[in-house]
Amino acid sequence: MYQPPTAHVIDPSTGHLSAATGRYEKRLSDLAGLYADTGAFETLTAENPDRIVYVVHEVRPQQETGDLIFGTTWMEPGRVGQEFFMTRGHIHATGNRPETYYGESGEGVMLLESPEGETRALEIRPRVMVYVPPMWIHRSVNTGPEPLVMSFCYPSDSGQDYGIIERSGGMAKRIVAGPEGWEAIGNAAYRPRTRAEIDAVLATAA
Amino acid sequence: MYQPPTAHVIDPSTGHLSAATGRYEKRLSDLAGLYADTGAFETLTAENPDRIVYVVHEVRPQQETGDLIFGTTWMEPGRVGQEFFMTRGHIHATGNRPETYYGESGEGVMLLESPEGETRALEIRPRVMVYVPPMWIHRSVNTGPEPLVMSFCYPSDSGQDYGIIERSGGMAKRIVAGPEGWEAIGNAAYRPRTRAEIDAVLATAA
Repeated sequence: MYQPPTAHVIDPSTGHLSAATGRYEKRLSDLAGLYADTGAFETLTAENPDRIVYVVHEVRPQQETGDLIFGTTWMEPGRVGQEFFMTRGHIHATGNRPETYYGESGEGVMLLESPEGETRALEIRPRVMVYVPPMWIHRSVNTGPEPLVMSFCYPSDSGQDYGIIERSGGMAKRIVAGPEGWEAIGNAAYRPRTRAEIDAVLATAA
Repeated sequence: MYQPPTAHVIDPSTGHLSAATGRYEKRLSDLAGLYADTGAFETLTAENPDRIVYVVHEVRPQQETGDLIFGTTWMEPGRVGQEFFMTRGHIHATGNRPETYYGESGEGVMLLESPEGETRALEIRPRVMVYVPPMWIHRSVNTGPEPLVMSFCYPSDSGQDYGIIERSGGMAKRIVAGPEGWEAIGNAAYRPRTRAEIDAVLATAA
């Protein structure tokens, strides 16, 4: 009647998580529309549309309220033009669910955005725990020369809404190569959410 | 109106967590009654009742349902007689809340017990993630010669019931020094929970 306790080993270089219950990967061809430099994206994709950008291993013990999902994200280093490789990003479908990300290897940035468009960019590296509070859209960016590997933990009734980023033309900021490694610049395609759109996000809280 | 995203650095040797919102420690004198060898406990306590056995750093972003609490546990190495230093242990007051523990440094055992008295002992070491499922009593044990440091994450509406262990005369098993480092032996003082006590624990699920 009880779920069995389990132990899982994380490989900090590959992101492999032993005894994971699920795994998925995103390839360049899955990420059309994410990057500002569409020409550079087309060139890269033509070279190898199956190039893996990130891989997620996860353990989903249950889907019920009150349980936790945990796992790892492994992200390839690279850029599309000046813009660093990144995850699609999401807000939790139940918007007031948080998430922790913990640096295992490599270096990157957690890019966060409130429904109103307020932005934060927090650096993540080994031994750094980043807390994504309720109601923040979040996306991981690999700003380093090596793979970025993080472990994560979030409530199992969170869900993911990926469309929130698409509907506003991307996130308000883009993380690009800069003189000091990386910098956050404005996204010209960004359309701030209307009050009605913001209220719809806030209404997902449970 | 939104909680700010935060980043926290974990020191794997001291368990220090930067920007923690809380910290507490347990000293030998706080742990009377935990160990089988009361004579050894009295001798150790007489030497230094303020000797620290473990320290917890934590971040409690909110108390509301759906949020997460995370932090670190730092545990001194040592024994009381043959029994390794351990935490008091608990079940979550809302019994069906889980927890993850991740090894940062040192080596230990997560000792788990179901309300019915079924036991598991899972080894934890750096890069090992232990999942404590809903409804399992759990206690950490430092079985190594160095401090054991773990990071943890659990739902913020979990709460802790420490009394569950006291009421049954301890956990069913004790983790003691053995020929291969550690072994789990029976606890002579253990009183299995009655059906009514088990049902009371199960009724805390929410």
